[in-house]
Amino acid sequence: MDSPLRTFLILAAIVSFASFLFAGWLYSWVKSRHSSNKRIAQVGKLITAGANTFLKREYIMLSKFAGVAAALILVFLPRPIWLGEPLDNVMMALAYIAGAAFSAAAGKIGIQIATIANMKTAEAAKEGIQPSFMAGFRGGAVMGMAVVGSSLLGVTLVYVLTGSHSSLLGFSFGASSLALFAKAGGGIFTKTADISADLVGKVELGIPEDDPRNPAVIADNVGDNVGDVAGMGADLFDSNVASMVAALVMAGSLDKLMGGKMNTAMVFAYTAIGLLSSIIGVATARIGRGGDPTKALNSSTYVTTSVFGALTALATWAFGFEWRVWGASAVGLIVGVIIGITSDYFTNDTKSPVKMVAKASESGPAFTILSGISYGLVSALPAMIGIAISALVAYKLCDPLGPGYAMFGISMAAVGMLSIVGMIISNDAYGPIVDNARGLAEIGNLGEDVLATTDELDSAGNTVKAITKGFAIGAAGLTVIALLGAFISEVNIAASELGVAGIVGFDVMNPLVFFGMLVGAAVPPLFSAMLMLGVNRNAQRMVAEIHRQFNTIVGLKEGKPGVEPEYDRCIVIATEGAIKELIPAGLVAILLTIAVGFIGGVQAIGGYLTGNIVSGLLFALFMSNSGGLWDNSKKFVESGNHGGKGSPAHKAAVVGDTVGDPFKDTAGPSINTQITVISLVSSIMATLFLTLSLF
Amino acid sequence: MDSPLRTFLILAAIVSFASFLFAGWLYSWVKSRHSSNKRIAQVGKLITAGANTFLKREYIMLSKFAGVAAALILVFLPRPIWLGEPLDNVMMALAYIAGAAFSAAAGKIGIQIATIANMKTAEAAKEGIQPSFMAGFRGGAVMGMAVVGSSLLGVTLVYVLTGSHSSLLGFSFGASSLALFAKAGGGIFTKTADISADLVGKVELGIPEDDPRNPAVIADNVGDNVGDVAGMGADLFDSNVASMVAALVMAGSLDKLMGGKMNTAMVFAYTAIGLLSSIIGVATARIGRGGDPTKALNSSTYVTTSVFGALTALATWAFGFEWRVWGASAVGLIVGVIIGITSDYFTNDTKSPVKMVAKASESGPAFTILSGISYGLVSALPAMIGIAISALVAYKLCDPLGPGYAMFGISMAAVGMLSIVGMIISNDAYGPIVDNARGLAEIGNLGEDVLATTDELDSAGNTVKAITKGFAIGAAGLTVIALLGAFISEVNIAASELGVAGIVGFDVMNPLVFFGMLVGAAVPPLFSAMLMLGVNRNAQRMVAEIHRQFNTIVGLKEGKPGVEPEYDRCIVIATEGAIKELIPAGLVAILLTIAVGFIGGVQAIGGYLTGNIVSGLLFALFMSNSGGLWDNSKKFVESGNHGGKGSPAHKAAVVGDTVGDPFKDTAGPSINTQITVISLVSSIMATLFLTLSLF
Repeated sequence: MDSPLRTFLILAAIVSFASFLFAGWLYSWVKSRHSSNKRIAQVGKLITAGANTFLKREYIMLSKFAGVAAALILVFLPRPIWLGEPLDNVMMALAYIAGAAFSAAAGKIGIQIATIANMKTAEAAKEGIQPSFMAGFRGGAVMGMAVVGSSLLGVTLVYVLTGSHSSLLGFSFGASSLALFAKAGGGIFTKTADISADLVGKVELGIPEDDPRNPAVIADNVGDNVGDVAGMGADLFDSNVASMVAALVMAGSLDKLMGGKMNTAMVFAYTAIGLLSSIIGVATARIGRGGDPTKALNSSTYVTTSVFGALTALATWAFGFEWRVWGASAVGLIVGVIIGITSDYFTNDTKSPVKMVAKASESGPAFTILSGISYGLVSALPAMIGIAISALVAYKLCDPLGPGYAMFGISMAAVGMLSIVGMIISNDAYGPIVDNARGLAEIGNLGEDVLATTDELDSAGNTVKAITKGFAIGAAGLTVIALLGAFISEVNIAASELGVAGIVGFDVMNPLVFFGMLVGAAVPPLFSAMLMLGVNRNAQRMVAEIHRQFNTIVGLKEGKPGVEPEYDRCIVIATEGAIKELIPAGLVAILLTIAVGFIGGVQAIGGYLTGNIVSGLLFALFMSNSGGLWDNSKKFVESGNHGGKGSPAHKAAVVGDTVGDPFKDTAGPSINTQITVISLVSSIMATLFLTLSLF
Repeated sequence: MDSPLRTFLILAAIVSFASFLFAGWLYSWVKSRHSSNKRIAQVGKLITAGANTFLKREYIMLSKFAGVAAALILVFLPRPIWLGEPLDNVMMALAYIAGAAFSAAAGKIGIQIATIANMKTAEAAKEGIQPSFMAGFRGGAVMGMAVVGSSLLGVTLVYVLTGSHSSLLGFSFGASSLALFAKAGGGIFTKTADISADLVGKVELGIPEDDPRNPAVIADNVGDNVGDVAGMGADLFDSNVASMVAALVMAGSLDKLMGGKMNTAMVFAYTAIGLLSSIIGVATARIGRGGDPTKALNSSTYVTTSVFGALTALATWAFGFEWRVWGASAVGLIVGVIIGITSDYFTNDTKSPVKMVAKASESGPAFTILSGISYGLVSALPAMIGIAISALVAYKLCDPLGPGYAMFGISMAAVGMLSIVGMIISNDAYGPIVDNARGLAEIGNLGEDVLATTDELDSAGNTVKAITKGFAIGAAGLTVIALLGAFISEVNIAASELGVAGIVGFDVMNPLVFFGMLVGAAVPPLFSAMLMLGVNRNAQRMVAEIHRQFNTIVGLKEGKPGVEPEYDRCIVIATEGAIKELIPAGLVAILLTIAVGFIGGVQAIGGYLTGNIVSGLLFALFMSNSGGLWDNSKKFVESGNHGGKGSPAHKAAVVGDTVGDPFKDTAGPSINTQITVISLVSSIMATLFLTLSLF
């Protein structure tokens, strides 16, 4: 093994362990915060138990799914076991299981800390914004460190132990399988609970948000944890692993061509430095007493970005990596930040779109919806242009280095964009923690001052969330373009082994490519619609349950002391429904991929992936941004504009927010995972599609 | 000139004139129907005057736009006048003006008859459903015949007089320019008026639909004519011309290669037979006394389809055309009908989606919206698969005929799908005529029985409209794929003249193609969002005007006899607003095309068009179907389900319908035109993009 590769593999392992140590320190720091309120402790215990119930069921379901998938891999992949090297199949199946397991472990850790951090954040709010912010932020950072550390460690281990592309793809596919369950399932759970709680509580009975009489209130809080913490973590674990694997697959092909292991070494160098930069960014995050939490969150992102840029430049200089590739990764990072800023424009309540939607709400809910959808659709353009330009620039920068470098450049732009993913996850997990803290403060009767503090923290969470969401979609966009390159690599390796002609690209004038493209483009809207219909159906079940409890439990509606709703019934409904509704959506996406592959072969799949990426990015951006826009428009009205709370504009804005909830928290973000899953299914099945197809 | 080509050029001319004669006969038949009600005559006159006001302003605006465009064509296209043959530029500029003028004339005729037919239909309803249906249907058929006759005649004339591709493309671009104004402008007009009238009338004041006290009621009726009759006619004129021109451009290239003119002859044969079949279909449309209008409309579509299939087979046999190409056109036609049927599934109130959305409305408007959007998104899949399969089958059928035939096959599938466009327009124009007739019956106090009759006719119109809309989008899909082929033809002709390398296709792994694709895909959502925001803004202006009238005109609200609102003020607001809001959306689409072309050259444009087609089809299908679904869900609730009129479910369903209105009548259908416009801009500017680009 070449010395730079060994150096950076060791660095990757060290940094991964460092991130675990740091996560452990943060964990115990958060845990050692003061807490005394009994009511909060009691409710917190219920939330923790609920979240664990969900995770347990989800993981059981997942093990069945993963078991079947691993068995199929064992028999058929990377090639039928009777044709190839059985050991390859065993390694790939094991790598697949490891991918799912590593991601599951990170999710479990995230839930664990989030359900502690929300209590600590709520109680710390009594002492002011600074200690409360630190509890929330450091809680989120545990998740960030755990996810990035375990993804880097996992990829490094698989690489060191097997060195094979198919095992790396298997690991990535395992991570994607989990993400599909965690993100889409968690998304259905959280919105089922959220919508049902609001519908019966706020709309029908007029009791406040987070009122403990509401049987769905605990499920709602559990939902924030399982959807926004565990789900989002699994999603970014998935993207992060996929970007590393895509880069490694292409680096491997290049290294084979050029001799040496410099390109592979470079991938490990950059990803290890990315995690290191995130550690530094988290460690330096501070907020002054009474300071602005948004500024604190953003500034730590900028610290991470600068450290990453500087350290990768240093590594490139010291080890003689290609400067052009460094340029590609820097472009990715910069464009990522720009995309984040444009998402912020469309969802920030100090900017025109949110204000216009709030104003339109005066004319009734139809106008809230129409204008929110319109701005969401418009918002896709700048991000699409940003992704397009970063891919183009990365390609053109690296193309002169030789054949194959152009696509490698794109994959390194994705790695660059995702280098700060640890920071992104930390910021993103902060959101649901402080959101929950607000709920606990309400339940624990901590008073108006505390609620004001948690509201401020919550609002900062929402703003930062919009930025990180745009960022995550942009990164996913580049990653999946890189995965398309990885797919070609895999097809060509298989083709050269089989002695048939390989492929260089996918011509849209080839009718098979066009056929695939039209079908692939229709999948993300189908997938997201199925999830939204799932939320709809599931919410109807839960509303019926809430009605049943209010009708049959004596004294519940009146809030008689000692009378408690059966919280766990709602949690069970949300859990079972989420898993039930998720399966068909995931299966349809995977089966359509397989059908297109066996009908039209690798050319059709190339078109299919392209169509899927293009329409998937569009719908993910549209749905996430519209959803965020409606959420903040509602808050803008609630803060006293256009008649404030209870006005007709407010009612209309609430309708917008309800529509936006599954948009931004179920359908939109799940599209990333859907794209990654089918890209990986395609890469993994490349040999089969190449040899067995109708056309 | 070869004998079959001459034969079919003569046939095309004869059939065009026959269609004009037939339209003239239908026109006088409708005009000679009995009418006596003074109130209806008076209001009818107001509607006619309003529609003419709009058309006049629109055409003035268009002449300015077309004047500038024609001047630019004269100087720069098909190539800069100082480099090429000046006569080519003159012919192209003239053809461009002719394209806009022919379409404008057809639109004017359509409006003329529609504003007469609605009165006749209303009064004929006193005598029963049969005479009323015939008046509405034959009124619509005037439009159908005028549009198809003039498009066929125009293309034939341009071909005979110039024989040049660039002039044909110029003619098509002229038709597209008009369609952009007529469809998008008319769409903004009609929904501005519709929404404003409902918002103040039905929602605020609780007065019935079409109540003559409402100042926007005439504007609303005018809107049905200018949006649904003239706009829809211009849209299908545009698609029809584009499909013919795409086929002719490719047929010309093939003929050049093969010698003879057989392929060109075939295009004229098929389009002439298509019009002939539509004439027969319209002429045989009958409804028994008390019969079912939906059945009558559908059966005449099936007559047209069968006649077309049989006659083209006969022509293919008699003149020795290629059977494989006949097969391609038959596939197009069949798939078109299938797409229509699937659209019907998602929008018909006897099927599950409409019922589910009506049921979801019981939980409030957010659920109406969520479920309607979800079903709309799902509905795109079957149509996308249908278009994909018809393109694939047409390609594979014709590929063995030699190089270039495969794309020609796709263009002939589009011609086949659009062969029955005369029938489609007739059925589609029937809708707004009977919708208006209902309004007039209300205004003219013709009694409950007449209203019941017009309601039944209206409901048939809605059902058929869904089918024809799906059909139109499918046809547009195939046409634009064919236009992509035409674009390559044009680039290669230019390349061979310039002595540079031509292109064979667009590889998605080429970063320029991918760059173009991401940007192109973001254009349809941007374009439709800009139109919807335009409707929003314009409706706010009109609502303010309606409030002003109710507040300042004494006795208006109370319905004091002799007191009339100022109808024309609302018409002027809708007209001016529509044109004002439309310009930026059209310009942005065209300018982005030009920008991408000059940045990335023809490869980027290839990707741009592909992305635009794919996402355009998705959004057009989604928006049209969601809109139709909400409309019919509202009607389903109004007919007594889930609490009927005035219930909470009804209120929620009305919100859905209001959101759906601009979806289905402004944004969705305008996307077709947007795609055609930029495809033609690209083809026309092919030489410039080939020679002057940044990358």
